[in-house]
Order: sequence, then structure tokens, then C-alpha cells
Amino acid sequence: MSVAVGLSESGRTTSQDGSGVSVSKPGEAGLKGLADYLAADMHACNKVIVERMQSSVALIPQLAAHLVAAGGKRLRPLLTLAAARLCGYDNQDGRLRHVEIAACVEFIHTATLLHDDVVDESHLRRGLASANTIFGNKASVLVGDFLFARSFQILTADASLDVMAILSAASATLAEGEVMQMTTQNDLSTSVEQYLEVIYGKTAALFAAACESGAVIGNASPQQREALRVYGANLGMAFQLVDDALDYAADQAVLGKEVGDDFREGKVTLPVLAAYEAGNEEDRIFWRRVIEDSQQDESDLDAALARIAATDAIRTTLARAEDYAAKARQALSLFEPSTLKTLMLDTASYSASREN
Amino acid sequence: MSVAVGLSESGRTTSQDGSGVSVSKPGEAGLKGLADYLAADMHACNKVIVERMQSSVALIPQLAAHLVAAGGKRLRPLLTLAAARLCGYDNQDGRLRHVEIAACVEFIHTATLLHDDVVDESHLRRGLASANTIFGNKASVLVGDFLFARSFQILTADASLDVMAILSAASATLAEGEVMQMTTQNDLSTSVEQYLEVIYGKTAALFAAACESGAVIGNASPQQREALRVYGANLGMAFQLVDDALDYAADQAVLGKEVGDDFREGKVTLPVLAAYEAGNEEDRIFWRRVIEDSQQDESDLDAALARIAATDAIRTTLARAEDYAAKARQALSLFEPSTLKTLMLDTASYSASREN
Repeated sequence: MSVAVGLSESGRTTSQDGSGVSVSKPGEAGLKGLADYLAADMHACNKVIVERMQSSVALIPQLAAHLVAAGGKRLRPLLTLAAARLCGYDNQDGRLRHVEIAACVEFIHTATLLHDDVVDESHLRRGLASANTIFGNKASVLVGDFLFARSFQILTADASLDVMAILSAASATLAEGEVMQMTTQNDLSTSVEQYLEVIYGKTAALFAAACESGAVIGNASPQQREALRVYGANLGMAFQLVDDALDYAADQAVLGKEVGDDFREGKVTLPVLAAYEAGNEEDRIFWRRVIEDSQQDESDLDAALARIAATDAIRTTLARAEDYAAKARQALSLFEPSTLKTLMLDTASYSASREN
Repeated sequence: MSVAVGLSESGRTTSQDGSGVSVSKPGEAGLKGLADYLAADMHACNKVIVERMQSSVALIPQLAAHLVAAGGKRLRPLLTLAAARLCGYDNQDGRLRHVEIAACVEFIHTATLLHDDVVDESHLRRGLASANTIFGNKASVLVGDFLFARSFQILTADASLDVMAILSAASATLAEGEVMQMTTQNDLSTSVEQYLEVIYGKTAALFAAACESGAVIGNASPQQREALRVYGANLGMAFQLVDDALDYAADQAVLGKEVGDDFREGKVTLPVLAAYEAGNEEDRIFWRRVIEDSQQDESDLDAALARIAATDAIRTTLARAEDYAAKARQALSLFEPSTLKTLMLDTASYSASREN
């Protein structure tokens, strides 16, 4: 598994930002602008999500509805819809293929959330009690499996072998990323490269696949398809870097989940790696105790936050997120200026500057 | 979800057994004969399984290898291979499509085993410590996800939309069956009909899909395809009924897992339902305490076994398994006599009379 977020030869561009339009201030319009612009498509997508999570076994839609009701950003399906529309998909085929595939992407994402919360023993998700807390681990694992299977039923009905190849490969990479994250847990000798591989696998791969699938549905040229894959991959990297920063820097009420989750689990994320790297010997002894030896008491989260602040580790993390967001924006340079393109550029900026 | 194991109109036959050849004594040749006959195909299948479970994340093949090394019957992939060959698949296409799909079926099954052992907190599988006991719950859930994703990558490469539709639907039904089983747990008001729906979902649906997929690969006529689906579904029902009987009746060393697992988990299986139904008031008070109220002490498994023996509940369960096995045999009546057909008839008999 390599962190293949760079542009391939065929899609390479020489311009700096290359967008051809002025970029909003990071996150200014952001996600909301894109969601508003694609509101009709997203509405149709939500309808498909609710329809396709139905089952004669009542607990399945009940549990799934808990997550759906909690909302969430729906960023991944939104990217599928945006990519398809950017490539000119006009559903003249009388179908809503982009909507179906977007729902599929959200099902794959939801399945991994359900499984993540079980394996991480998380109790809060999107500001509500997590599904495993309410319905138990067993139901969460099984409903995750159901949603994953259902997503492949939707893909089969859509019948694009290209889209199936993209999303089944991304699903495998996702699991690999999660396993790799598990093996780097509590290990401060994890390199930044390995960390980036983990977040590519666990997050960016599905962002890339969401965008690339939309491009395929939109009948994109090979160059457009590759550009949208690169856009999604880099946006996903930025998104996860900010996620990891927020775990040490967010306002819990705004974040919608527990601050310090990663810390308590001994996850080795960039804020920790940067603080460890930039820290003095006393810092390092602290990090080894709380992360490697998992010896934490109640005051340690505050101590960790102080050490992270003192070493500028959040700024280091966010700067890297901004680098990826810039690459995401640059990847769109081969598309003509349009409102949708501007909103997608803003969304890339948002991914590097969001607060929840 | 309905227990659709009967022959559809198009495949209906009027003969009683209809096999055209004499059936061995139940289980006499059984599974081993079929495995020997298809040894070359199974060898190729095992090779594909090992090849396709590889990943750059070392823990994934390590964990998967633990299950593969433990062996198991490989009954489901064997049925895919048998169905394809019975329909005349000769791999003149220069590929080994039946082998690839058989590996896929085994991956789906393995994924569910990994998840089952996590949610049931099982410690023994195939006579060895279960994967979750050695590698932890987290790794088991994630490697299950990986194998599931990988199976859809194999299906995508094979490119048969029919096979994809069959196996993605079976995967969804599987999850539904498991969730339904969960909701009937500890509930003695579960009807025999509901119980049969659960075992159709959790077991027979994948057996049916394994056989039907093989038929599609073998270019079967619609009648042959339906006959093999029915064969697999009924064989799967017999197989699970015997599984549920063995949990109260097996020699633990022969069984390769803990006897009484279902009892301890409060699973409502046919042996329990039959003993509850046929029991006196004292029996019923006992079953309500141990199954509904989950109040069990160390002597209760022996007490349960005694009550099951006194009410002939194992015989009731095995008789029903034999009925399904007979339906499985009957479904093959439209195929010409052949060695392979005889072995498949024997395998149906085996499924109703196996001891582990």
C-alpha cells in the first residue's frame, strides 16, 4: 500500500494553483456551499439511503436510522455527486446513477464507523451516544456487515465494473489502513511516512474512490478521472489531518465527540509525533509513559495538551493539511471555471480548516 | 426474508427421490468422497485463497492463515466447484472461474466466522483457539472486513453480474439472519418457523448461493440453476440443524469446539424449542430460568442435556435435518446419473448425519 496521492503523468499540470478562479478564504464557503448547490441531489441520495437500509429484520433499519438521524457531514457522497456533475453527468439516461453510487459510498463509510466504534469502544458519535452504546457491539458489527453487503448489491444493480473495481479496492484498502493503524498504536517509533500511509488507507482512499466513482458515472476522460481521484485523495488526507488535530484542539461541544479519544487509545497521530519529535527529554518521557506504556491518569490529557501547545504540534499538523488541500485544489486545474468547480475548491479549503 | 428452499414451479419434479441412482447410507461416503473427487480443483482453490489473502499489512495474512491452517471442511467452496462441474464447466475458457468464485465464497464465510466469534465471544474454533482469542477483537473485525472486500474484488475481476447479484444478496441475507438470531436469543416464544428463517439466513442462504454461483459459472440452464440453488439451500438447512443438535449431543473432541456454546449464549435452537415444547411444567420452568433469564450454574448444562434426551429433542432435530437432506437429493433429479452426482447426493446425506 503506497500513499498514491500525487498526480500521475497523464494528469500532471504545471500551474501553481491552476484553478483559474479565485479561491475563497479557507473554509469560508466551504462544505455548506457545495451542499446547498447539490441540495436536490443530496435529497435524492438521502432518500435512497433510507430506502436501501430497509430490511424485514426491524433492528437493522432502527440501528441504521440512529446514525442517519445523527446526520453527519455526508461529505463522501457529496463528493461523488459533485464529481459526476463536474464531468457533466446530466442523468439523461433516466436514472440517478450518481445518487445510487453516492448512497453506496455512504453505506461503506457507515459500515466502517459502526465497526470502528465497536473496536475502539467509543461512546459518542456525531454528538449522540454511539450505536454500540445503545444497540450493543453485536448488532453494530452485524448491521455494518449488512450495509457493506447492501452497498455491493447497489453496485451490482448499477453494473459498472469500473465503479465496482474502484469501490471494492477502496474497501480493502480501508480495512488495511485500520489494521495498520492498530499495529502502530502505542508505538512512538512510527514514522511520519507510516502515519501518512495509515490515514491514506483509513480515510483518503475512500475519498479518492468517492470522487473517482463520480467521474466514471459522469463519463469522464481518463485525465479528468485521474484528476478527481487525486482531488479526493488529497482532500481526504487534509480532512484526516484536521481530524487528528481536532482531537487535541477542539471545543468538545462543537466537535460532537469526545476530545482526547485518540490520546486515551494511544493512537499515534501527527500531533503526538510532532510533539514527541520537537519535545525535550522530559516531554519524551511523558509521551512514552502515556502512549507507549498506556499509563495515564486524569490530569494527563491536560498535560498532553500543554505539551502539544508548547511544541506547536497542532500548527505543524494543520500546515500539512493545508499542503494537501492545495494539492487537491491544484488537481482541478484541468476543469473549466464554473460555480461547481469553485465550490469544490472551497470544499478542499474547508477540509483543512474545519472546526468539527 | 422467507425460507425459500422449495423448488420453484420451473424446477418442480414429481419423482420421490428422483436421483436415478442408489443413495449411499447417510454419510457413508459423504463429504470425503466429494472432496477426493474434486481434489485438483480444491487444491487450486486453496492456492487462490492463500494468494488473495495477502496484503502489505502483515497482520492480515497472519490472522487469515490461522483460520486457513485450522482447516475446516471447506464445504461451501466445494459445493461451488461441484455445481460448476455438474453443469459441465470444463474451464476451456483458459480460466479457473469456478475456483475463483469458490475462493470468494470461502472468504465471505471466513469473514462471518471472524465476526461471529467476536460477537459471541467464542474461544475455540475448529479445535484451535479462535482468532479473536489470539489476535484480539479489533483485528478479527477488521480482517473480516478485509476478506469481505477482497471477495468483491475477486467478483469484480470475474465480471459476472449474475454471480455478483447472487453473492451480494446472500451476504446481506447472512447479516439479516445473524441479526434475527440475536433478536430471538433468550426468547422461548420463538416459533419453529422463525427459527427456520434464522438458520436459512445465517447458513442456508450462502450454501444456496455457493451452488447457484457454480451453476452460473457452468453455464447452467435456468432449470439446472434453480435445482442447484434448491439443493444448496436444503443441504444448508440440514447442515445447520445438525450443527444445532451437535451443540447438545457431540463428543467435544470430535466436534472441535465447545459443546454447550449455544446453551451458554441462550440461543434458541430446535433442540431447545423441541425440549421446551415436549417438556412438562418442571422442564419449562428450567428452560425459562436458564434460557430466558440467563441464570445458569455449572450443573445446568448436564441438566439441559438430560432434559433434551428425555424429550427426544435431538431425534426431532435430526429427523427434520433428514427431511431437508432428502429435498436436497430430490432437487438433483433433473441431472443425468454420474459419479459426481452420486457424490453430491452422498454429501446431502452427510449433511444430515455428520458428527462434527
